Amino acid sequence: MTTVPKAPASAAALDVIAIGNAIVDVMAPADDALIERLGMARGGMTLIDTARAHELYAAMGPAREISGGSAANTLAGLAALGAKCAFIGQVADDQLGEVFAHDIRSGGIAFATPSRPVNAQAGDPPTARCLIFVSPDGQRTMNTYLGACQFLPPAAVDEDAIASARVLYLEGYLWDPEEPRQAMRRAIAAARGAGREVAFTLSDSFVIARHGDDFRALIADGQIDILFANEHELAALTGVEDFHEGLASLHGKVPTVVVTRGEKGAHAFRGGEHAVVPAEPVTRVIDTTGAGDLFAAGFLFGHVRGASLEACLKLGAICAAEVISHYGARPEADLKALCAAVPG
Amino acid sequence: MTTVPKAPASAAALDVIAIGNAIVDVMAPADDALIERLGMARGGMTLIDTARAHELYAAMGPAREISGGSAANTLAGLAALGAKCAFIGQVADDQLGEVFAHDIRSGGIAFATPSRPVNAQAGDPPTARCLIFVSPDGQRTMNTYLGACQFLPPAAVDEDAIASARVLYLEGYLWDPEEPRQAMRRAIAAARGAGREVAFTLSDSFVIARHGDDFRALIADGQIDILFANEHELAALTGVEDFHEGLASLHGKVPTVVVTRGEKGAHAFRGGEHAVVPAEPVTRVIDTTGAGDLFAAGFLFGHVRGASLEACLKLGAICAAEVISHYGARPEADLKALCAAVPG
Repeated sequence: MTTVPKAPASAAALDVIAIGNAIVDVMAPADDALIERLGMARGGMTLIDTARAHELYAAMGPAREISGGSAANTLAGLAALGAKCAFIGQVADDQLGEVFAHDIRSGGIAFATPSRPVNAQAGDPPTARCLIFVSPDGQRTMNTYLGACQFLPPAAVDEDAIASARVLYLEGYLWDPEEPRQAMRRAIAAARGAGREVAFTLSDSFVIARHGDDFRALIADGQIDILFANEHELAALTGVEDFHEGLASLHGKVPTVVVTRGEKGAHAFRGGEHAVVPAEPVTRVIDTTGAGDLFAAGFLFGHVRGASLEACLKLGAICAAEVISHYGARPEADLKALCAAVPG
Repeated sequence: MTTVPKAPASAAALDVIAIGNAIVDVMAPADDALIERLGMARGGMTLIDTARAHELYAAMGPAREISGGSAANTLAGLAALGAKCAFIGQVADDQLGEVFAHDIRSGGIAFATPSRPVNAQAGDPPTARCLIFVSPDGQRTMNTYLGACQFLPPAAVDEDAIASARVLYLEGYLWDPEEPRQAMRRAIAAARGAGREVAFTLSDSFVIARHGDDFRALIADGQIDILFANEHELAALTGVEDFHEGLASLHGKVPTVVVTRGEKGAHAFRGGEHAVVPAEPVTRVIDTTGAGDLFAAGFLFGHVRGASLEACLKLGAICAAEVISHYGARPEADLKALCAAVPG
């Protein structure tokens, strides 16, 4: 296991900088019969092309549009808690791109990636959207048209900004397309060269199915300091069915590992420390979109503020509970107030 | 008072056809200090140009996009209740236009007005948006960039469709720009020629300040069968400060008049009949956008189904209460179920 030697961490101008998909979510309620009729995998995330996007949108009920994107959602939570954040991601120069950029910047997050020009005649892709069908029990079924996201160029990686952030947070979803993957590799090198921590969320089992070897190599090389996964992703990554064995298999390989288990709560270890939290009670689950993203937000907020591992998990659980209690993957309630009682 | 002679009403294929602004609402919470700092009239609707739209959007917090437009909101309520509806309004051929068209059609409302081409170099206007700042008490402050809406051409008026609808519903907001006003005059003639009822909502006091003479002339000519107003609009239209006197002054001039008074309930007369309903109780007012639009939806649904005047008002009050209990001016709950207990 070769590790890039860490420079002593200098004072950080940013708490977290993230690279992720720049997506606007298009969300509508749907009954399970519709989800089945449309041949969608309930609860999953599927990448779709233009034709399928048109087909699914035509079958969708009246919707609402709310900015999304996994890592961007996490930053929205972090910024709401008071962290200083920046985002790198690719929108197109169109109305949905303007919406995404507005929402991230107005949340107090720096976002400097230039929009990608759109010439419809030339077939330039528009800003990404995710068609989300929300079941009566709050389960979300996501269909992502990646559009401009796939063309985030390595040149968009601001190495100075990355060097100035305590944590570089990377979204596994974006490991799939070629150009962003190169961008993320460059970002990892910049972060590690500056002695910063690299956090990675595995995002979805399909990403691990395609790129698990890359992720295992990054881990073996000591490139990942903080790993976020849910229990299915953990099993896919480690090849170990048993949850506790799977978690234990990462000891000594990743300094900090956080695994969410939905209503069963979440587990984490950091160095030799281990902690577990139950899920926060929620009066009614409305829409689970963004649950993992906001869990990561709360956890990372505690982490960069030096909170105990248990407090980090508790912050994650509170933020996740807030976001599943309403439509949309961006926080609505005052997260600072909700988290005020959590001890450092 | 000259009235166009009514042909005997033939069986109607549609319950309600409406002409209105085709707008996507961009909504965000705001405290009153921000509303004051931006020089907005709290609770009002102001037309804005491109420069002001940019200024206000930049000052707005993270937002969500939900289709709006006054008459379109009313149709969304009517369709949710089970009425057969059609909409005439102008979107541009852009992403927000696609969103608006999707939301109205997927709600089961016929919408055949062609999108207006957009050539950014030629300065063609985009689809309308309304920047809505929602105060903690649920009051909404609206800033409307009309864009393509202003160019709804008289040719977009489908006279056959209008002749096939029991009620033509017109939005006062759209009386302001020149082309749509001509379109609406043509639509009124088509409806009256076919013996259909014409319903008109006054929309806002500023519209009456500019076009009150037109409205009073339409009323004097017997062109309006059903008039919707709030108490402020009633006063502006009639020039009578006292609510009851103002309402009485329309007796014999408009067959049916419906006036909403917010939390004080609503009054209506139809011929010699008079009725009053209190406002429906709401656990918490979240966003009053669309309250009047949904009141009109409930009332018109009762009206086309032959319900008593009191039942029509009750249906209006229930629909208004639903829409102010969440963000956005389109209904979310099952209006049919909410209204099931109202007797005919």
